[in-house]
Amino acid sequence: MESTSLFTANNVWMMTCTALVFFMHLGFSFLEIGLTRQKNAVNIIFKNFFVITAGLLLYCIGGFNLMYPGFEEGSMGFLKFAGFGITAPEIGMFAEYANGGYTWWTDFLFQGMFAATAATIVSGAVAERIKLKSFMIFTVIYVGLVYPIIGSWKWGGGFLDQMGFYDFAGSTLVHSLGGWAALIAVYLLGARIGKFSKEGKPNAIPGHNIPLASAGVLILWLGWFGFNGGSVLSADPELTSLTLVTTCLSAAAGGVSSALFSNILYKNFDLTMFMNGILGGLVGITAGADQMGPTEAILIGLIAGIFIVLGVALVDKLKLDDPVGAIAVHLICGVWGTLAVGIFGAMAGLNQFLIQLIGVAIVGAFSVISSLIILYIIKVTIGLRVDPDEEMKGLDLSEHGMDAYADFRLNQH
Amino acid sequence: MESTSLFTANNVWMMTCTALVFFMHLGFSFLEIGLTRQKNAVNIIFKNFFVITAGLLLYCIGGFNLMYPGFEEGSMGFLKFAGFGITAPEIGMFAEYANGGYTWWTDFLFQGMFAATAATIVSGAVAERIKLKSFMIFTVIYVGLVYPIIGSWKWGGGFLDQMGFYDFAGSTLVHSLGGWAALIAVYLLGARIGKFSKEGKPNAIPGHNIPLASAGVLILWLGWFGFNGGSVLSADPELTSLTLVTTCLSAAAGGVSSALFSNILYKNFDLTMFMNGILGGLVGITAGADQMGPTEAILIGLIAGIFIVLGVALVDKLKLDDPVGAIAVHLICGVWGTLAVGIFGAMAGLNQFLIQLIGVAIVGAFSVISSLIILYIIKVTIGLRVDPDEEMKGLDLSEHGMDAYADFRLNQH
Amino acid sequence: MESTSLFTANNVWMMTCTALVFFMHLGFSFLEIGLTRQKNAVNIIFKNFFVITAGLLLYCIGGFNLMYPGFEEGSMGFLKFAGFGITAPEIGMFAEYANGGYTWWTDFLFQGMFAATAATIVSGAVAERIKLKSFMIFTVIYVGLVYPIIGSWKWGGGFLDQMGFYDFAGSTLVHSLGGWAALIAVYLLGARIGKFSKEGKPNAIPGHNIPLASAGVLILWLGWFGFNGGSVLSADPELTSLTLVTTCLSAAAGGVSSALFSNILYKNFDLTMFMNGILGGLVGITAGADQMGPTEAILIGLIAGIFIVLGVALVDKLKLDDPVGAIAVHLICGVWGTLAVGIFGAMAGLNQFLIQLIGVAIVGAFSVISSLIILYIIKVTIGLRVDPDEEMKGLDLSEHGMDAYADFRLNQH
Repeated sequence: MESTSLFTANNVWMMTCTALVFFMHLGFSFLEIGLTRQKNAVNIIFKNFFVITAGLLLYCIGGFNLMYPGFEEGSMGFLKFAGFGITAPEIGMFAEYANGGYTWWTDFLFQGMFAATAATIVSGAVAERIKLKSFMIFTVIYVGLVYPIIGSWKWGGGFLDQMGFYDFAGSTLVHSLGGWAALIAVYLLGARIGKFSKEGKPNAIPGHNIPLASAGVLILWLGWFGFNGGSVLSADPELTSLTLVTTCLSAAAGGVSSALFSNILYKNFDLTMFMNGILGGLVGITAGADQMGPTEAILIGLIAGIFIVLGVALVDKLKLDDPVGAIAVHLICGVWGTLAVGIFGAMAGLNQFLIQLIGVAIVGAFSVISSLIILYIIKVTIGLRVDPDEEMKGLDLSEHGMDAYADFRLNQH
Repeated sequence: MESTSLFTANNVWMMTCTALVFFMHLGFSFLEIGLTRQKNAVNIIFKNFFVITAGLLLYCIGGFNLMYPGFEEGSMGFLKFAGFGITAPEIGMFAEYANGGYTWWTDFLFQGMFAATAATIVSGAVAERIKLKSFMIFTVIYVGLVYPIIGSWKWGGGFLDQMGFYDFAGSTLVHSLGGWAALIAVYLLGARIGKFSKEGKPNAIPGHNIPLASAGVLILWLGWFGFNGGSVLSADPELTSLTLVTTCLSAAAGGVSSALFSNILYKNFDLTMFMNGILGGLVGITAGADQMGPTEAILIGLIAGIFIVLGVALVDKLKLDDPVGAIAVHLICGVWGTLAVGIFGAMAGLNQFLIQLIGVAIVGAFSVISSLIILYIIKVTIGLRVDPDEEMKGLDLSEHGMDAYADFRLNQH
Repeated sequence: MESTSLFTANNVWMMTCTALVFFMHLGFSFLEIGLTRQKNAVNIIFKNFFVITAGLLLYCIGGFNLMYPGFEEGSMGFLKFAGFGITAPEIGMFAEYANGGYTWWTDFLFQGMFAATAATIVSGAVAERIKLKSFMIFTVIYVGLVYPIIGSWKWGGGFLDQMGFYDFAGSTLVHSLGGWAALIAVYLLGARIGKFSKEGKPNAIPGHNIPLASAGVLILWLGWFGFNGGSVLSADPELTSLTLVTTCLSAAAGGVSSALFSNILYKNFDLTMFMNGILGGLVGITAGADQMGPTEAILIGLIAGIFIVLGVALVDKLKLDDPVGAIAVHLICGVWGTLAVGIFGAMAGLNQFLIQLIGVAIVGAFSVISSLIILYIIKVTIGLRVDPDEEMKGLDLSEHGMDAYADFRLNQH
């Protein structure tokens, strides 16, 4: 039967995309390690490993069914997936499921890889000072509950979806959702020791491994082939390949515009801006990657690149300490990308713009409130932040008793 | 004709998986470099490069035909593949070959990537003290002869296969086969200078680049999408996607359980345990990745993670010096995964368990005996181990005359 | 309809290959960083980021239409793609386009990833001394104009194609095109300070991060699965899988032959030769990867490995300073691979050999002349080379005001 071939080809694409989205966790890990100090590298990797492993398990135990409530005979299905003798629905293995775009197993795994991303975004912003246990508790709740609940409003067919809100691959549902939590966490944590002078002037705390950070950017870009390309939810030739084109052009435009704009403002060739500009372009195109043509994709990227330069300056001005630029990349460009669906491309129009704005606001409010509650409770109970002397020595020693680079002579700062 | 499309989709998946298994060699390389000292990094990379290049050539010259004797008109075909005017069988390019799962070329290349893995497992365990030439000779024989002979018993349709032994993607045929050789090699080589005190207490010799080691783990996990996903030998949607789900859940469970269990035992958050726990989960699920549901996969991973913690302690107790934990990961979890096929999932049963046990024992005996013979002959002829002063200076200088990190100031130890 | 499935499977493969070719930019970046000094790492990454981002944008703005002039209703189409209200041709989304091998979008993106490669090849050769702005100007012209013009002669159906010249995936059209420009640039720039003694003897300037350099080689090899595998321009099972086999065998043979041959000549195990031997094998097979059997692929690789060892020595002898070996890898092996199409495999013959020779000469002449003109004009206007004291301090400080490794103690040299 014809549909077997097409179903197989679709599922091959979706599995490939799943692998690519998984690989983004190496990208995030490299980016966060590289842009911070060596004394916290082990700690950052540990957090990243925890996010991907615990995230997958949580999504299996409950998140998947919480996010897509209607898919399994109408039941909420919480805790049904992982154990308790319940296996995949018969139909989930055939082309009749999900328009033949993939199997139920692929569906779970692809979505599971997305779930972990939200917490990873936070990980970078809170680096070098958050207590490991506090971060782990936050991750469990945010990935296990907050993400799938918000996700269900749109991707699970909930009220945002019925309202007409559009978010192709998650500028809002993944990136700004993580970005808002990053903002709240950074605010509650306070800046790293030495980040701001007594007069409030920001001091640069340079990253310790720029080659790894830049590799992280290229790995994330590669991962976005799967993040956006897989969000077509099939291998439809026109939509998948258009999506890859818009994704890559927006990334390229974001990088170039950020590098040039920061060169005009600050008179140097700032590699970190180049890196975050690429990421901003990627986040920016994510909400409408299937709705834009090449021209629109380039424009969205160019504007995202400018927002990155301004956003990083703004975060500094607000005396927020975001070591990797997560707020500018994921929050600001996530909001920008979502709104851009109402400005450019096939869905552009004032009505759509307002719907996008409402969606951004609702998700923002819920993200802010839930992360505020979770993090505040953690803060007043076990505490959010490590002791100052632990922070000075670095979390690798105090939390893990090990060095990232045992054979190298290092500058402590 | 229908089958052309399906054949093409299948072959696309198998080529993608081949690329992913190839990429595992970067994972192994990073893992081994990262967990050892900088003075031996060039040497480890050289060994890894030799394994993948020589391994592929050997598999082409003889291994492939040795391992799959019946596939080419019944001939043993040794040395037939590479040269001597013989090309691929006509049928090997059509859907009639291998149930339309892939072409003969893809078959060769996918299997060739597997062949090199066994020797790479050994490479990590013998790091920092084995003579380069001795390792190269061992690799040529182990990859060129031992691996394909053992492989033919099961995957080539030999007696283990006819006995009912099940090893989906090689917990035994790849991982424990390499693990047994690692055990013998470590025993014959002895520990690195300084690893054990005069009283026999183990000293930690910390790895020099934890970010690279952790990247190695994530790259290996990515590669396992192809290692297990490709072992379906087609893109069958149900089996491939189930396999990816069980693979990822076992990896996640292995990591979490290893991290938590070592935290309970040793009161710290040990990243190396987390890393090896993930790998243990991956190795553990490999024998039955297509036979388990999510619950069973998680259980296999959880137990693998505990075995990792106990296994690393046991290896230390036995005064064996395995710098990267290869014995715990590949041997112990390889055996565990193979036995788990008789305990969990679709094939569970006492009879199957006993068959699995017999298969493990036979492959173990043959691996142990053959590696003992090869390594012992090398030991008494050209020697296995470098001179103590070469070991102290590091193999990079003594064997290669170059530094891994020429611009960095380093601690010699 | 049957063709939808096949078209979808083909396009899935081509998108996967596009992602892999994109990922080669991380490979190039790691290779170039690793084989040079830490004080120029940020600069090299910046150049690589510029090449991939600006390269894609330029290919979108004009390069694609310049290179494939006949594809869009016969118009030259310069500047048509990106903006000005023109979108993809209707037919480009259907199986009727390009024999159903891919969509027009995939076509653009796959070719766009190739376009950036030529300039990246130059980037390594000119590292550690070229002015950033000069390199950026050169890149814009070489990627935006020279590459697509030369490409159109063969891949766009131009006179080289009609002459019978064969270059499957670009030994000449990508690699030697970049290699010739590297040669000219290295000649015009002169050697790095300290590379040659007053008596003209070459001094080794060791690379600062061999693990990253070696990772670059494995990532490039992985990328070549897409570079050659995608050059089939469909997922045709026989041709794609044959291409992967020849590609991997030539890479393996190149590495082994280079390592052994340099061991015979210089009595050590030179990892850099091993690395460049693999790359030489990859470049060498690229012109005829679909025309060779395994035996021929191994022979081409073995010879490429020997050319690498001799080529590196020759470049030194000519007092050219090519920090990463780009001339030996991309120019010499690119020429070798193109000629090999006339010596080995399905097209071998004196007539074909002569056609290949003519093609090599024409592309070489045009590459040399155009890069000479561009670089000479840059040299006499804004200058090609940084000041000696900037070079001594490193370009990271002088051009970017930042360090690659802020926490590490470093040797300045």
